[in-house]
Amino acid sequence: MSDFSGSVDLDQILDYSFEPIEFAYTERDVALYALGVGAPADWLDQEELKYVYENSGVGFVTLPTYAVIFPTQMIHTLLSGDLPGLKFNPMALVHGEQYVEIKSPLPVRARIICKPRVSAVYDKGSGVLVVTDVPCFDEQGQEVAFNQSSMFIRGLGGFGGDRGPSRDINNPPDRAPDIVHSEATFDRQALIYRLSGDINPLHADPMMAAFGGFDRPILHGLCTYGFAARAVLKHVCGNDPARFKSIRARFASPVFPGDMLTTEMWIEDDSRVIIRTSVVERDAIVLNHAVVEVAP
Amino acid sequence: MSDFSGSVDLDQILDYSFEPIEFAYTERDVALYALGVGAPADWLDQEELKYVYENSGVGFVTLPTYAVIFPTQMIHTLLSGDLPGLKFNPMALVHGEQYVEIKSPLPVRARIICKPRVSAVYDKGSGVLVVTDVPCFDEQGQEVAFNQSSMFIRGLGGFGGDRGPSRDINNPPDRAPDIVHSEATFDRQALIYRLSGDINPLHADPMMAAFGGFDRPILHGLCTYGFAARAVLKHVCGNDPARFKSIRARFASPVFPGDMLTTEMWIEDDSRVIIRTSVVERDAIVLNHAVVEVAP
Repeated sequence: MSDFSGSVDLDQILDYSFEPIEFAYTERDVALYALGVGAPADWLDQEELKYVYENSGVGFVTLPTYAVIFPTQMIHTLLSGDLPGLKFNPMALVHGEQYVEIKSPLPVRARIICKPRVSAVYDKGSGVLVVTDVPCFDEQGQEVAFNQSSMFIRGLGGFGGDRGPSRDINNPPDRAPDIVHSEATFDRQALIYRLSGDINPLHADPMMAAFGGFDRPILHGLCTYGFAARAVLKHVCGNDPARFKSIRARFASPVFPGDMLTTEMWIEDDSRVIIRTSVVERDAIVLNHAVVEVAP
Repeated sequence: MSDFSGSVDLDQILDYSFEPIEFAYTERDVALYALGVGAPADWLDQEELKYVYENSGVGFVTLPTYAVIFPTQMIHTLLSGDLPGLKFNPMALVHGEQYVEIKSPLPVRARIICKPRVSAVYDKGSGVLVVTDVPCFDEQGQEVAFNQSSMFIRGLGGFGGDRGPSRDINNPPDRAPDIVHSEATFDRQALIYRLSGDINPLHADPMMAAFGGFDRPILHGLCTYGFAARAVLKHVCGNDPARFKSIRARFASPVFPGDMLTTEMWIEDDSRVIIRTSVVERDAIVLNHAVVEVAP
């Protein structure tokens, strides 16, 4: 059994000022991320090629969810135990939820400055939920994206903190979905995705996956997230990233490389799409409490 | 019809001194190349993971054929018409043959200096064959690899030059192969491979492929080459890169992303393996006149 003990010093965590994180990327990184999250679904379709090929007939554009990669260094800080006031076993951390809002279409090459802060620490009894807010700025100081991540650390709850708000939100309505999109991941999906920055061995190493309690390495939650966002981008936004405003989702259960991802979409109104992603063969919901905001 | 006219000034070409090319790479580039040439065939096997994952149980190593990437900038020089004495339509150039010799196992991170020169220009009648020699050195000045590329340019022959040596060599013996290895490429193979540097649109863009006379984008010859080398590395060298000394092959016909590659191996003696790679479904030989030298 793994040892999931540790300690939480609430005041110390909330008082901590992260150093700003600089993240520079180029067209090559943009294409590599897109391949990591399954683009292009059809490699002969220019509308899909534009995410991976710099001279497609319809331009070259960055997938909106690439913005979640900007503060990757912050995750490394958490995992390496460098956040004062929080001591834990890295294998006890799971990514709980992710929200990302794209303030303006992402360039295909940029230098981004991320300014992370811990905005809340909740005591969930079975563990602690650490919420980080990360506004991301371009070199002109304009905010281009905003990330909010919730990290759940098993075994550290019960320190007498606030439980936080109920999170039973963004559930599908009681009707059939308006759109359903299925797409296969492939066996080396996590090995490609990890080259975008999240090199947690849980996603590559059979031995480390076993330590984490899994039969084999699992796909990054944010990789599944990228597949789901692409489904909405295609079916609801006509593959126009400018119409993709934000996405929020909870990571409900693990995905294994090779799984087929099925994303159901319920169009609530002009600007709001409830989504849910499942691995049908394993009867597993993998993303839920999920919503995408779009521009009409 | 494309215009394949141009001009050849033999003396000017052979007198030309290339600027040395600096090529710096990291672990991430090594892993990306390996994924580009199909590694790992089995993503749960540490012996294959070691080509793409920096902390595998058996280390992290660079595939020997990564050395062909070092002088990629030289190809750009040729294609952009910057080689004095040689004017041609870039779409008329095809990679004819490649030889690479690995002098010592490649580091997983290095700064390499390539010193290209044109060593021969042959008049093949239907076109011109330009042979480049590229010794590649580490920062200590040690030669780590030697590349020799033959580029065939359609339509520029008949200038009265030397035809060069016959190249009907390294043919399979008249018996069944000792080892046969099949491995599938996948539809986005060229899109991953190109991130290692060869961004020729022929391998990504359906429109540009049509200009080149192909139904759809074709796989990089050097990607197929990487698959073939991996087959020998696995079956003959026990996945030990130190035993892989060199590979020479001719690019006989195009491979399309998604094709299954079958590599036949004839072990001639302790140090020499004749190989041939085919796409069996299309009854097409894609690599021939090919030999790998190995250490016993």
